Amino acid sequence: MEESFVPFRGIKNDLRGRLKCYKQDWTGGFGAGFRILAPTTYIFFASAIPVISFGEQLERDTDGVLTAVQTLASTALCGIIHSIIGGQPLLILGVAEPTVIMYTFMFNFAKNRLDLGSELFLAWTGWVCVWTAILLFLLAILGACSIINRFTRLAGELFGLLIAMLFMQQAIKGLVDEFRIPERENPKLVEFQPSWRFANGMFALVLSFGLLLTALRSRKARSWRFGSGSLRGFIADYGVPLMVLVWTAISYVPAGTIPKGIPRRLFSPNPWSPGAYENWTVIKDMLKVPVLYIIGAFIPATMIAVLYYFDHSVAAQLAQQKEFNLRKPPSFHYDLLLLGFLTILCGLIGIPPANGVIPQSPMHTKSLATLKHQLLRNRLVATARKCMRKNGSLGQVYESMQEAYQQMQTPLIYQEPSARGLKELKESTIQMASNMGNINAPVDETVFDVEKEIDDLLPVEVKEQRLSNLLQATMVGGCVAAMPFIKKIPTSVLWGYFAFMAIESLPGNQFWERILLLFTAPSRRYKVLEEYHATFVETVPFKTIAVFTIFQTAYLFVCFGITWIPIAGVLFPLMIMLLVPVRQYILPKFFKGPHLQDLDAAEYEESPAVPFNLVTEGELVRTASFADDEEILDGMITRSRGEIRRMCSPKVTSSTATPSKEFKSLQSPRFSEKVYSPRVSELREEQSPGKVGRGSFSPRTHEGKPSNLGKSG
Amino acid sequence: MEESFVPFRGIKNDLRGRLKCYKQDWTGGFGAGFRILAPTTYIFFASAIPVISFGEQLERDTDGVLTAVQTLASTALCGIIHSIIGGQPLLILGVAEPTVIMYTFMFNFAKNRLDLGSELFLAWTGWVCVWTAILLFLLAILGACSIINRFTRLAGELFGLLIAMLFMQQAIKGLVDEFRIPERENPKLVEFQPSWRFANGMFALVLSFGLLLTALRSRKARSWRFGSGSLRGFIADYGVPLMVLVWTAISYVPAGTIPKGIPRRLFSPNPWSPGAYENWTVIKDMLKVPVLYIIGAFIPATMIAVLYYFDHSVAAQLAQQKEFNLRKPPSFHYDLLLLGFLTILCGLIGIPPANGVIPQSPMHTKSLATLKHQLLRNRLVATARKCMRKNGSLGQVYESMQEAYQQMQTPLIYQEPSARGLKELKESTIQMASNMGNINAPVDETVFDVEKEIDDLLPVEVKEQRLSNLLQATMVGGCVAAMPFIKKIPTSVLWGYFAFMAIESLPGNQFWERILLLFTAPSRRYKVLEEYHATFVETVPFKTIAVFTIFQTAYLFVCFGITWIPIAGVLFPLMIMLLVPVRQYILPKFFKGPHLQDLDAAEYEESPAVPFNLVTEGELVRTASFADDEEILDGMITRSRGEIRRMCSPKVTSSTATPSKEFKSLQSPRFSEKVYSPRVSELREEQSPGKVGRGSFSPRTHEGKPSNLGKSG
Repeated sequence: MEESFVPFRGIKNDLRGRLKCYKQDWTGGFGAGFRILAPTTYIFFASAIPVISFGEQLERDTDGVLTAVQTLASTALCGIIHSIIGGQPLLILGVAEPTVIMYTFMFNFAKNRLDLGSELFLAWTGWVCVWTAILLFLLAILGACSIINRFTRLAGELFGLLIAMLFMQQAIKGLVDEFRIPERENPKLVEFQPSWRFANGMFALVLSFGLLLTALRSRKARSWRFGSGSLRGFIADYGVPLMVLVWTAISYVPAGTIPKGIPRRLFSPNPWSPGAYENWTVIKDMLKVPVLYIIGAFIPATMIAVLYYFDHSVAAQLAQQKEFNLRKPPSFHYDLLLLGFLTILCGLIGIPPANGVIPQSPMHTKSLATLKHQLLRNRLVATARKCMRKNGSLGQVYESMQEAYQQMQTPLIYQEPSARGLKELKESTIQMASNMGNINAPVDETVFDVEKEIDDLLPVEVKEQRLSNLLQATMVGGCVAAMPFIKKIPTSVLWGYFAFMAIESLPGNQFWERILLLFTAPSRRYKVLEEYHATFVETVPFKTIAVFTIFQTAYLFVCFGITWIPIAGVLFPLMIMLLVPVRQYILPKFFKGPHLQDLDAAEYEESPAVPFNLVTEGELVRTASFADDEEILDGMITRSRGEIRRMCSPKVTSSTATPSKEFKSLQSPRFSEKVYSPRVSELREEQSPGKVGRGSFSPRTHEGKPSNLGKSG
Repeated sequence: MEESFVPFRGIKNDLRGRLKCYKQDWTGGFGAGFRILAPTTYIFFASAIPVISFGEQLERDTDGVLTAVQTLASTALCGIIHSIIGGQPLLILGVAEPTVIMYTFMFNFAKNRLDLGSELFLAWTGWVCVWTAILLFLLAILGACSIINRFTRLAGELFGLLIAMLFMQQAIKGLVDEFRIPERENPKLVEFQPSWRFANGMFALVLSFGLLLTALRSRKARSWRFGSGSLRGFIADYGVPLMVLVWTAISYVPAGTIPKGIPRRLFSPNPWSPGAYENWTVIKDMLKVPVLYIIGAFIPATMIAVLYYFDHSVAAQLAQQKEFNLRKPPSFHYDLLLLGFLTILCGLIGIPPANGVIPQSPMHTKSLATLKHQLLRNRLVATARKCMRKNGSLGQVYESMQEAYQQMQTPLIYQEPSARGLKELKESTIQMASNMGNINAPVDETVFDVEKEIDDLLPVEVKEQRLSNLLQATMVGGCVAAMPFIKKIPTSVLWGYFAFMAIESLPGNQFWERILLLFTAPSRRYKVLEEYHATFVETVPFKTIAVFTIFQTAYLFVCFGITWIPIAGVLFPLMIMLLVPVRQYILPKFFKGPHLQDLDAAEYEESPAVPFNLVTEGELVRTASFADDEEILDGMITRSRGEIRRMCSPKVTSSTATPSKEFKSLQSPRFSEKVYSPRVSELREEQSPGKVGRGSFSPRTHEGKPSNLGKSG
């Protein structure tokens, strides 16, 4: 996306691009069949649970004016509208913590004014929303989103980690509060006796850690050794919601012997209880707000607008990272415009507005990548098997697969040629076939493991469609009706879920991985090289990595500290925006260009791409691992984020001067992230038995360990 | 050990063998320095915690006549005597669950007799011990232990798993009881109110699972990426006791807000409290026991004798399994004789006798293997570095290491030539040197990673000495004095520890691994081949493995069921003894000889060894893994038990007819369990760059997956 500030150009471009694929957005979604339910349920829980929890927080802080019913309604309404007429359907909308904090602040301001009070509070926030929307319109029209490219990995990952810290903080705070008497509750109730309070706290520890540990395990079910493939797949897809159910059920096990209030459960009024409807008619009261306050509403509006501009764009950016190989165009400006309209709408009906959320949006894209992989895989496996039953040769099998793959491609051509994945498939077919020697002999499954070959061949692709977003938003809306059931979930399960979300967002965050690298013992750093890893591990000296990471960590803690400041705290995104000039003008003075580029590739200083020429056969063979099936994909999409990872490559100079252009040329993750079983090398040994023993006892570290890791630090 | 029933011959042989190395048993122990404390502490906890718990159980069941003070005293006394004048110092003695059950039964019998009563109970058990000892003497003198070879892996592993089940059962029972009011306690105490009882149970869940999870993690500390090597080593060595301390400390965190009895802690009288001394003078009362009861004592004595004969011998056998490569001779008969004396001694001073225990005895050997590896490694690394500083060539480095290794060998020659490990080192040196090409050039650490080479070269060896056993027994004795501190440990931590011991005993148990294999999805069974695995995985058809394992599992559950029978339950070892004729006469009718031999190698039907000729260089290169340092050893000694494990070997026929003698010939675990980093193959690629790409895309499963795993099931 080029930077352009010509009014309306950004919006026009976005609309043009997205309209082209609008029909496919729906047909593709429905074409996926019932499998679409896996990412939908996954995101539904990730979206609904925090929104319910923020709703409870709002209820406490606004004396019950706003509750979980309102936050759920806003999330559902905005989500449904966005999924239907929004630009980028990968973006997930929801009421987020900053919104809650702003609304709390505004409530505290309003309730103490005689001419406003808590009666006119919602009407006043209506005006705030109007001002916010106007500012968002301006930003969208003037092309403010085109500077999104300046938000590099540095800023994005720092923001991601900050959000993870805030979620984890919420989890810990929630757990600690389980030992205390909640505010606004009658402390004389039997469940608030010291003994029951302590019991409640301990039970909460059991439930939340139980949920956290089992949810983390279930996400890795695909790599389990036990159970059938479909069971493993089901657990991996639906394990997290399943675990919420399981632990909720467990929370009822001791029900007979303990008072009703233990463990504490979600508290929210039913939508049909009196008072829950009051705020829908806010628009009638808006003209009752004194003029001075209508004008004054501009002040909080600017803060919210800045917040939304940043949050919405960064969430969209993280959901569309390079390594997802998205085929459909982005839509930053149009989506910001739409957000403006949604904000007005929410303001007029007296509910807090929703905006693009992290980590749910990138989680959404990840889960759709898994879905796309499953769909492609099933189709290609079926095709290959069919061809093999007809005694097809390896060449024919590949040809048929190629054809099927082509058919599965979205029939749209955008900026980039969409045939890239296909081309690669073709290349590897040829390579494979020539390696097999006899390309025309019939093959069967004993010599040719179809499923694995296909897993290896498939690139990361995402099922880009609107259905999953629409469905999850509708399900969030359904929560309002299902409130009596939702209320059965213990709050402690919720805290466990918060911790789960924080931990789930860590893998793939290079900033996090660099922090881990700092704590890795020098003698063990070579282990990083043996796994998937980013380029910088090999090309940047350890000392530079350390300094860069320490700077980033210090910055992170400053941002985290700012969130603790009572009101100004919500403006922590400004600190992250400040990273743009820091990255562009200050960091280059302290770090060498090639290093910065490997640690934090910025488009505006990227060197031109070098033609693809380095992936020789030898390069490919060097990788070895035991993963298979969708585990590979799990690894790819959770561990890598817009960066090429390589497995121990033997010839790496600690080039501080040469920026190792060869790595840059590996633009597709397919070649670098490919996973080979060790049998490849066995096969080779059988081919040249005279050579195999050579070097078996030779020292094996002097070349494999790049000197920057082996020596410094 | 040949089967011989000539009176006294077994004892004489044992004494002759062990006397030869008696001096070295001590010098070797002291030579290890402070490092001996790692296995000592590890075994001390594994030994003391169950004994304390059994003591509490006895106290409840004998109305306080016997307590933890007595069980600790017996364990310490017998342990100290056995470690000094016993035959096999690897054997750990302790008061075990069957003894507790027998004593409970005898107490219930005695207390209801007018002419016996609880006053003469201990005097009567004195007579039981006398009879037991006489029977043990007879068994030892007549060479009953020489049939120990008939206890094959089948019986040993079944027994091991049964013990693990009993430990796990105790852990679960203990945890459930934390929610209940303990017997013999005043139910009106504040901590037994429903609220505090529930709180106590939940707290117990937190503490026990906390201990279990952290203890399991800490044992794997050597493979962590974080922290310095010495810290990782310290955590791996002392992590379990450390975690007992940590979780005991955590149990005091909420101390201010909760009643004193929560969480429940160990209960035992201090040894200096009145009454604790009463039983030491039992010998005075023994003649007061009516003659009829003296004669009747023979009945329980036979049961105890059978039990001790079996337990003691099997514990000794499991501590001396083949793959530990022990250098010093066994001592079954003499140890049984000594056990007779110890039983009389305990009987006369009124404490329950101790016998050889599982899983502590094999745990002891394992921890000493780790110790020996560390010692050898440090010495050889120092030697190699010294030589390299003097610009020695690779040949010289190896020569110096060889010399150092020779010096570290126990200077004793027994039945087998002790120079085996040395010979292997020499062979590999030659191989290595010739592979390196330039044998005379000076080497330095950049081309030659000393620590890894040595880790790869060292065979599994055990630091066989008496010091660790003596020290741990003394520390158990110290527990009697340290009772006020021991009593601070929460019982829930103890239940977590029981679960930990049960889980720790599973890896390496082939029976357990076969059970897991049954539950492994057919499509994932090839994964077993990619890891270390036993021969049978490749040579025996899956269906046969399944039938054999199901039979063994059914047998296990029958044994487990028998332990639930009120009194006769203690005789469950008889069921295991019954496995000897079953294995020898019945199983061969249902299973093919070669299969049985791979699943359960029995000495009496073993085929003669084939000369060592199959380990070609190619064979060696095929193994690949990322483990290093002592992780390798952890893997070797915990995962393998007397069986050669191989990594995905490519040419395996599903030979049901040919029993694959080649595997049998791999007597040493060194060659098969060797671990190579993938850099070996990289180096090879650089040597012959023209060949490396070949086969990179070839189907890789058709040779690597033996058809028995790939197809059946």
